[in-house]
Amino acid sequence: MAERGPALDVVAIGNALVDVLSHTTDEFVSSRGMAKGSMQLVDETTARALYQAMGPGVEISGGSAANTVVGVASFGGRAHYVGKVRDDQLGEVFAHDLRSTGVGYTTRAATSGPSTGRCLILITPDAQRTMHTFLGASARLGPEDVDAELIARGNILYLEGYLFDPPEAQEAFRVAAGIAHAAKRKVSLTLSDPFCVDRHRAAFLDLVKHHVDVLFANEAEVCALYQTDFDAALEAVRGHCEIAALTRSARGSVVVAHGKAHPIDARPVKAVVDTTGAGDLYASGFLFGLSRGLDLPACGRLGSIAAAEVISHVGARPQQSLAALSAGR
Amino acid sequence: MAERGPALDVVAIGNALVDVLSHTTDEFVSSRGMAKGSMQLVDETTARALYQAMGPGVEISGGSAANTVVGVASFGGRAHYVGKVRDDQLGEVFAHDLRSTGVGYTTRAATSGPSTGRCLILITPDAQRTMHTFLGASARLGPEDVDAELIARGNILYLEGYLFDPPEAQEAFRVAAGIAHAAKRKVSLTLSDPFCVDRHRAAFLDLVKHHVDVLFANEAEVCALYQTDFDAALEAVRGHCEIAALTRSARGSVVVAHGKAHPIDARPVKAVVDTTGAGDLYASGFLFGLSRGLDLPACGRLGSIAAAEVISHVGARPQQSLAALSAGR
Repeated sequence: MAERGPALDVVAIGNALVDVLSHTTDEFVSSRGMAKGSMQLVDETTARALYQAMGPGVEISGGSAANTVVGVASFGGRAHYVGKVRDDQLGEVFAHDLRSTGVGYTTRAATSGPSTGRCLILITPDAQRTMHTFLGASARLGPEDVDAELIARGNILYLEGYLFDPPEAQEAFRVAAGIAHAAKRKVSLTLSDPFCVDRHRAAFLDLVKHHVDVLFANEAEVCALYQTDFDAALEAVRGHCEIAALTRSARGSVVVAHGKAHPIDARPVKAVVDTTGAGDLYASGFLFGLSRGLDLPACGRLGSIAAAEVISHVGARPQQSLAALSAGR
Repeated sequence: MAERGPALDVVAIGNALVDVLSHTTDEFVSSRGMAKGSMQLVDETTARALYQAMGPGVEISGGSAANTVVGVASFGGRAHYVGKVRDDQLGEVFAHDLRSTGVGYTTRAATSGPSTGRCLILITPDAQRTMHTFLGASARLGPEDVDAELIARGNILYLEGYLFDPPEAQEAFRVAAGIAHAAKRKVSLTLSDPFCVDRHRAAFLDLVKHHVDVLFANEAEVCALYQTDFDAALEAVRGHCEIAALTRSARGSVVVAHGKAHPIDARPVKAVVDTTGAGDLYASGFLFGLSRGLDLPACGRLGSIAAAEVISHVGARPQQSLAALSAGR
């Protein structure tokens, strides 16, 4: 049990991963038969073989929902993270980096089994990232790691679609959503990745129709969910969720709610360096705004500010104070 | 024993470290009583306490001499590294990052004792770095790790002054220098850090006078060695070493050899982001040029090119091909 404490803006559950970022060429990505821009799950052997073949890396704590709560904290919000590492060096790095930003993190590290999960991220010259994830210890997250009192303290519960990959985590996901709704909290979900949607379409459709209040998806993901084009997907989702925030890269985002669609501009950036974390950080701004009672276009604008910051440098966590950036806009 | 193989441009011996880089404020550095810009040795307890107190980090393979051989490889040179990690995750990261750049690395990892060494690097807004090093497994490097055949294959043996901190490594240092001279190879040394010079002044003076052919030092280090000002230090060193390359930050460097002093300009950079590795990379260009028979001003210019590249981004290893940069100058 987490200690009783003040209300939280966001409690997030996700796969706890350390990113290994490496610059590479289009040729290297295509020579290995990867779909550029996607995330692929790999076992430890495949992850090792890719690591051997790739260039020097930089290790930075990652994990989609973890990046999001770091963003929430950077806006000045109160956030807590639930996700599993092992009691190894990379697990220690993950926990340190999260806590040092002010995010609460109390999930017990695994003391046996696979090592802390890693996401090998290849950055091509067009700033796209192609990801290979070895889930490792993150797949050991289970319902026993979900602390009911903690979930009930969060205005919004945020769940990443990637959690549907490990079966035990899927169960933790459902338990947490049930607790949040029972406590009259909002449940939000990000679809994470079009291939992830393909893997779990029926389950995601059921969730979106019946259990999700706030949905985050990019164009490819929402189209994959409904197996149609963007306009038709937008029509479909407005009947299913209270709020849907659909991101479209440089074309900004569309927030759909209560029968209305609000187009939100992307924030211009000098140079797109690495798109890793763009969606995660968009969600951080949006959730922070929502928790603090801002109107939907304002929530979307905070999302755009956070996304613009994170694509301007390598790595998926903000390097500047998002509170200062949003105050100065 | 390393396998017999072709001649190498540079064989380097150093403390094998993973850097943990974190942006911080001047206040944080001064509140902990640190001397900005210096390197301080710390034990594991102190390293842990500092890590707890500091912000989120980025892990990048480092180690002064390791950075230098990565630079040599980036110029298109052949290089080998000798330094000790443990058989842990950070040790694996260190070995991967080195080998993936083409540097040979065959030192056996320790299977017991302290974990892979770490250097906690605080980067202040002025791009200065203040370093706290927990030597860990790197201090276990000993004479038994020095492979005579490998040393004899290198045109130049490069030793970092930091090696004088762990006593066993100091012994490895002396053994390697003896082998190199017996094989009629050049022995080069970098003084590493003014505090390191203070710790080992008598030993360094003896080495410089009697055993070092090529000396690298920045202004503070060479002044610390001779306990005098730069001009007097320059006079002193010209009588002691065949070649001395003395770096002066934005004012470039002075190469002293055979009674002549060659001033070398620094390469202008758009913005100095992080000075970590500036001296290490200067040495890489200089050593590569020297091994390939370039004249001394040309060696210095390659040093300036490499240093300019590495201070333009976070981290102490080149992100662009130094071969391409030097071809395009």
